[in-house]
Amino acid sequence: MASSAVAFATENHARFLSELKDLLRIPSVSTLPEHALDCQRAAEFLAAELTRVGMENVRILPTEGHPLVYADWLHAAGKPTALCYGHYDVQPTDPIDEWLTPPFEPTERNGNIYARGAVDDKGQVWAQVKALESLLAANKALPINVRVLFEGEEEVGGESIAAFVASKPPELKSDFALVSDTELFAPGLPTLCVGLRGMIYTEIEVNGAKTDLHSGMYGGAAPNPFFALAQIIAKLKDENGHILIPGFYDDMIPPSPEEMAAWKSLPFDEEHYRVTEVGSRQLVGEAGYSVLERTWARPTLDVHGIPGGFTGAGAKTVIPAKALAKVSMRLVPGQTPAKAYAQFKAYVEQIAPAGVDVTVRLIHSGDPCLVRVDNPYIQAATRALHEVWQKDTVFIRSGGSIPIVGDFDRHLGIPSVMMGFGLPDDNIHAPNEKFNLKNFELGIRSLIRFLEEAAV
Amino acid sequence: MASSAVAFATENHARFLSELKDLLRIPSVSTLPEHALDCQRAAEFLAAELTRVGMENVRILPTEGHPLVYADWLHAAGKPTALCYGHYDVQPTDPIDEWLTPPFEPTERNGNIYARGAVDDKGQVWAQVKALESLLAANKALPINVRVLFEGEEEVGGESIAAFVASKPPELKSDFALVSDTELFAPGLPTLCVGLRGMIYTEIEVNGAKTDLHSGMYGGAAPNPFFALAQIIAKLKDENGHILIPGFYDDMIPPSPEEMAAWKSLPFDEEHYRVTEVGSRQLVGEAGYSVLERTWARPTLDVHGIPGGFTGAGAKTVIPAKALAKVSMRLVPGQTPAKAYAQFKAYVEQIAPAGVDVTVRLIHSGDPCLVRVDNPYIQAATRALHEVWQKDTVFIRSGGSIPIVGDFDRHLGIPSVMMGFGLPDDNIHAPNEKFNLKNFELGIRSLIRFLEEAAV
Repeated sequence: MASSAVAFATENHARFLSELKDLLRIPSVSTLPEHALDCQRAAEFLAAELTRVGMENVRILPTEGHPLVYADWLHAAGKPTALCYGHYDVQPTDPIDEWLTPPFEPTERNGNIYARGAVDDKGQVWAQVKALESLLAANKALPINVRVLFEGEEEVGGESIAAFVASKPPELKSDFALVSDTELFAPGLPTLCVGLRGMIYTEIEVNGAKTDLHSGMYGGAAPNPFFALAQIIAKLKDENGHILIPGFYDDMIPPSPEEMAAWKSLPFDEEHYRVTEVGSRQLVGEAGYSVLERTWARPTLDVHGIPGGFTGAGAKTVIPAKALAKVSMRLVPGQTPAKAYAQFKAYVEQIAPAGVDVTVRLIHSGDPCLVRVDNPYIQAATRALHEVWQKDTVFIRSGGSIPIVGDFDRHLGIPSVMMGFGLPDDNIHAPNEKFNLKNFELGIRSLIRFLEEAAV
Repeated sequence: MASSAVAFATENHARFLSELKDLLRIPSVSTLPEHALDCQRAAEFLAAELTRVGMENVRILPTEGHPLVYADWLHAAGKPTALCYGHYDVQPTDPIDEWLTPPFEPTERNGNIYARGAVDDKGQVWAQVKALESLLAANKALPINVRVLFEGEEEVGGESIAAFVASKPPELKSDFALVSDTELFAPGLPTLCVGLRGMIYTEIEVNGAKTDLHSGMYGGAAPNPFFALAQIIAKLKDENGHILIPGFYDDMIPPSPEEMAAWKSLPFDEEHYRVTEVGSRQLVGEAGYSVLERTWARPTLDVHGIPGGFTGAGAKTVIPAKALAKVSMRLVPGQTPAKAYAQFKAYVEQIAPAGVDVTVRLIHSGDPCLVRVDNPYIQAATRALHEVWQKDTVFIRSGGSIPIVGDFDRHLGIPSVMMGFGLPDDNIHAPNEKFNLKNFELGIRSLIRFLEEAAV
């Protein structure tokens, strides 16, 4: 289908890229207080552009953290309403030494644009804005109703947008969300993410003696909280990574045979993945499941740190009074954070060794999420992607969590179309983050065509 | 026996205590590089005082670490020579929040002086210096020949003094060592320590992926070094504290039946010890052995800290590339550090889980040690102690390590009289370290009378 909006986007691509570079030059690192004004600037930059291209009711919504940006265009009577989501905040740049070019000096190299936030998520946010501009410029109207909601705290937990969505404000009433913060499974392969793992992030605190003790004097009589923690942690999974918490797997809904079959056909080279992405001696995980199953569709448990005790250089012969472990579990569809946490807590308390007091705390949690591929918006997306990429869409999951997708589902009752154009080697959260320029261009075209197809 | 030196000490006690506070104000934390100059200052403080009180050949001996302080007085022809040992360095102060008064602002409270190093070991070093001062001031001479050797690295392994002693320098030629770094078994009970556990202090480093990874994306495929460490640590001891390293107990020499019988008669209330000293829900350790056996005469293994990973507040969903554990073992007579470390290293390497690289390092070690109670210096000590404390001396062991005692034995061929005046609840290596003021005073008196009795 010929689209005058696509033609507009093609003609204006150089300008789109130049504007993206301006956005990338704003160091909107959300976790660093000294960049709070840069986050405000990025929000203002987006609001100004949304206004310029013809979106309406453009507002910068203050929050307790960094502001939200809202806009809408609601004149497509009888058509569905999309809620376009992305985030303008970025990760810190450390280790800064490892960047080949400065993180906030966007640089074109090898067909990519390199900058912090290039793909996560400013480049994808900009693709949404440019798709809207192209449609409005070519047709003086959008094919469907559109609301825009950009946030500036995705990299620090997204509390403000979560609270806003949970309040179910009328201005978020929509039929589906368009979330542009994911990636293609492989270059040139149109991809929709239709499943996300949930999570529970916990702390296990173990208290032994009332105060730190000398390990010479008291070793052999005083409980050692670090040893107790090691005993507990070692009982959480078996040697193969199978989680030993009773009942933990009971409610999980395995992927369908069709989904499993589709995953088997994906271009995935386990050895390449081991060497280039993980870089470990070998991969680990439950026997009998592929890497994609283990990272997308199986619950996992990881230890992130065991603070406390003596952590300096050299030696201190202390039996610490207290130890803490940060332990999280990824959950899959069917599991709920509340039940998983209750099972975890009861098990940890049950296996706590003698002599110590064990306290378990929930730090935060997120629901797993699965999008039905037969919903009409996913179907519209696959038609659009096929036209632009000349290939069938692959449906993948992500092992990570995008909490806002669960919030949209739970509070607004709408599914998300997770259509993103990153690549697995884009170095998100790492030095030399990049966005492939072709993917930026085809991404804008895909988003235009998706909004057009969603009207059909 | 009336001693004019004891009278001098009694008259000058207020000054002695005031001087000790000056020494305690020097934050000579040997493990922290930023306190290297403070260690130097503490050495200079001691050297100046030794000179002032009339010791000769006072020298600050530079080392690769913190300096040694040497002094002598060798004019007691035909009398034995004592080698007085103590250390001026102290442990770090963390957790600093738990100190009721600042660790380097010595404060008198409830008949104690509170400060880091109050009893371990500056207060006891100062008791030696003040005993020498009292004898020299009262008699213009010492009753026996005396050499003094103070170090500043006891809390970090004592490498420099070990190397110095191992070189068997002529200026250390002595008949016995007087080591003041131990404690009374109970308040008012004169005590000589005649056995020490040795130790090996190690680090286990575990490396997984080449870089920190996102636990959502990679959880289920990437090895988790903290989980691997927990698996390793949990296999080092069984649930009852019995060490599982093959061969670890093979060479140990158990205490004699007489020693065991004497320990049974010591005033030891396990429940009181649990509540007041340890303050844990229950005591732990190998079944079938008393607390004194477990802490004095059985090998033990403790974990001191597991640095690395995410240790901040809240949540970070990282699979750390690397984890480290600080693990030490206490050794008993018959065991040797070299063999114990070889057994430990081989076992850890054998039980290392798949997917990670494990490296084991020895940080430092010390030999276990046993002193014969029939030697004449121990006998002189018991006479002196009986006079000052009006009670028979009890012979105990310590679960801690004083590596220098083994070095004196091995390299200089001399026994050590471990006469110390700490108390079990003095919080050494912990917040609110203290030294009982009465013990400081009676300690000085005991040291004076011991040096006088050693001349008989």
